[in-house]
Amino acid sequence: MMDWSLINFIDIAGTFVFAVSGIMVAIQKKFDFFGVIILAFVTSVGGGTLRDLMIGSTPVAWMKSEVHVITVLAAVPICYFLSRQLQKARKTFLIFDTLGIGLFTILGIEKSLEIGLSPVVAVMMGIVSAVFGGVLRDVLSNDVPMVFRKEIYAFACLSGALAYIGLNLISDKSEINMLLAISVVIAIRLLSLRNKWSIPFNVK
Amino acid sequence: MMDWSLINFIDIAGTFVFAVSGIMVAIQKKFDFFGVIILAFVTSVGGGTLRDLMIGSTPVAWMKSEVHVITVLAAVPICYFLSRQLQKARKTFLIFDTLGIGLFTILGIEKSLEIGLSPVVAVMMGIVSAVFGGVLRDVLSNDVPMVFRKEIYAFACLSGALAYIGLNLISDKSEINMLLAISVVIAIRLLSLRNKWSIPFNVK
Amino acid sequence: MMDWSLINFIDIAGTFVFAVSGIMVAIQKKFDFFGVIILAFVTSVGGGTLRDLMIGSTPVAWMKSEVHVITVLAAVPICYFLSRQLQKARKTFLIFDTLGIGLFTILGIEKSLEIGLSPVVAVMMGIVSAVFGGVLRDVLSNDVPMVFRKEIYAFACLSGALAYIGLNLISDKSEINMLLAISVVIAIRLLSLRNKWSIPFNVK
Repeated sequence: MMDWSLINFIDIAGTFVFAVSGIMVAIQKKFDFFGVIILAFVTSVGGGTLRDLMIGSTPVAWMKSEVHVITVLAAVPICYFLSRQLQKARKTFLIFDTLGIGLFTILGIEKSLEIGLSPVVAVMMGIVSAVFGGVLRDVLSNDVPMVFRKEIYAFACLSGALAYIGLNLISDKSEINMLLAISVVIAIRLLSLRNKWSIPFNVK
Repeated sequence: MMDWSLINFIDIAGTFVFAVSGIMVAIQKKFDFFGVIILAFVTSVGGGTLRDLMIGSTPVAWMKSEVHVITVLAAVPICYFLSRQLQKARKTFLIFDTLGIGLFTILGIEKSLEIGLSPVVAVMMGIVSAVFGGVLRDVLSNDVPMVFRKEIYAFACLSGALAYIGLNLISDKSEINMLLAISVVIAIRLLSLRNKWSIPFNVK
Repeated sequence: MMDWSLINFIDIAGTFVFAVSGIMVAIQKKFDFFGVIILAFVTSVGGGTLRDLMIGSTPVAWMKSEVHVITVLAAVPICYFLSRQLQKARKTFLIFDTLGIGLFTILGIEKSLEIGLSPVVAVMMGIVSAVFGGVLRDVLSNDVPMVFRKEIYAFACLSGALAYIGLNLISDKSEINMLLAISVVIAIRLLSLRNKWSIPFNVK
């Protein structure tokens, strides 16, 4: 039995943090007010939107209520007034960001399994949910996506996704499995940042 | 009672002007013949395509007939032979472009309200319809989207969108409301160009 | 009567070759392991995904089984260990690539006609299927899409598409028509490479 109030809380927290990440990039790129807002939306709901389009779940999830819209819009004045503090609070930020990608991974898997996709494809859709908001943010900012070179959070997502599928095989689906899988995402990500893990692809 | 022949006329005029805008960028970037055609299509039908995908209206609108395809293709020889004149006729061009974004905004709102989305989300879909053709044009040309930095037409779209929602609250939906809302878009855009309005987002 | 085992074979071969093309670009751009995998997927299934989204066929085709996923993943170690040989075997590679775009064109047309789209729009969807994987690969690598400037394979796709529509008008739909249309794609592409054909768009 899933505790949806917990899921919803982390979903909104993740959306907020992704919005902040989009706004920070937009500020750095000297985008104007609308550039900031558009990048906030693309970063925070882009991954879930692509997932929903691909699995055929439309209108896409965030459009069905106004919670996500309000969350993203709320991030704008907060970033405007607290941008210095936010830059200092990088650790708190990182925790929420990691919680966010962890949860987006699991949500993507759940939605995909529900419509009958195979676990392999569901894992991929989980990673798409978590990673493509950032990819779209970087493409719209005219950068090479960070996830292709610097960050290995795709690896953290994949580990959490596989852990979640594995746990669901050996026990009933539950919020415990979800929290364990998110813990895997957090652990791998923090370990990788601390130890500067990287997985280069050097051909001879 | 909406006058669809008027809507259809402005829709096609808007599609044509957006196609011209894509072709002009493609010429400047020295794209070849197919690059020109692809950029013409992406610019003119890109925003409506993204909106239709997100609200789940497929096959997307322009694919259901050949009017849009013919309109876009017709823009290619016209730009080829009249590119110099078109560059001189910037004012006429601007009027149509502004009519186009005005109408695309209203069309996007209408289609979204029709499938039961909230007014807030409908306003966003209106802006997506009007703005994302240009965003995709710039991304495919490897530029930072103009709407993020130089042009404030997202603001014009938003103003027109809010005017339209407001007018529909106080009176019956009608072509008058639509034309008034498009007038708001045009007025805000021309005022902003004349007075060089900008809405920077400067954090301390 | 279509021979689906032949279609499936060329589909998978095309997917494999497109994956290799994505991996090669990712290696050149020094992407890490996940960047390589994501670019392999985007290149190989991107065009078909966009087509399926636009015609409203979801979940998109490749997600319904694991064949495409396995094909793309298999390309990764092969490229890792054989990258030097692959660069030498450019001709074989080119044949498969051309077979791939030929077949992707025909598949896109078939799927579009089946849901009742007009032949003109079906031809466009055929070209989208064949060309947009490469467009997305280049956009995600922060390059101007190659098809806009250097390669005229959009022209080869268009020729094959028109040949296919024409052949189906004068005879029953068959694998012969399909193979003839793919031959047109191959012939035009090889001729264009050999003779350095280009179709510039130079306005006065």
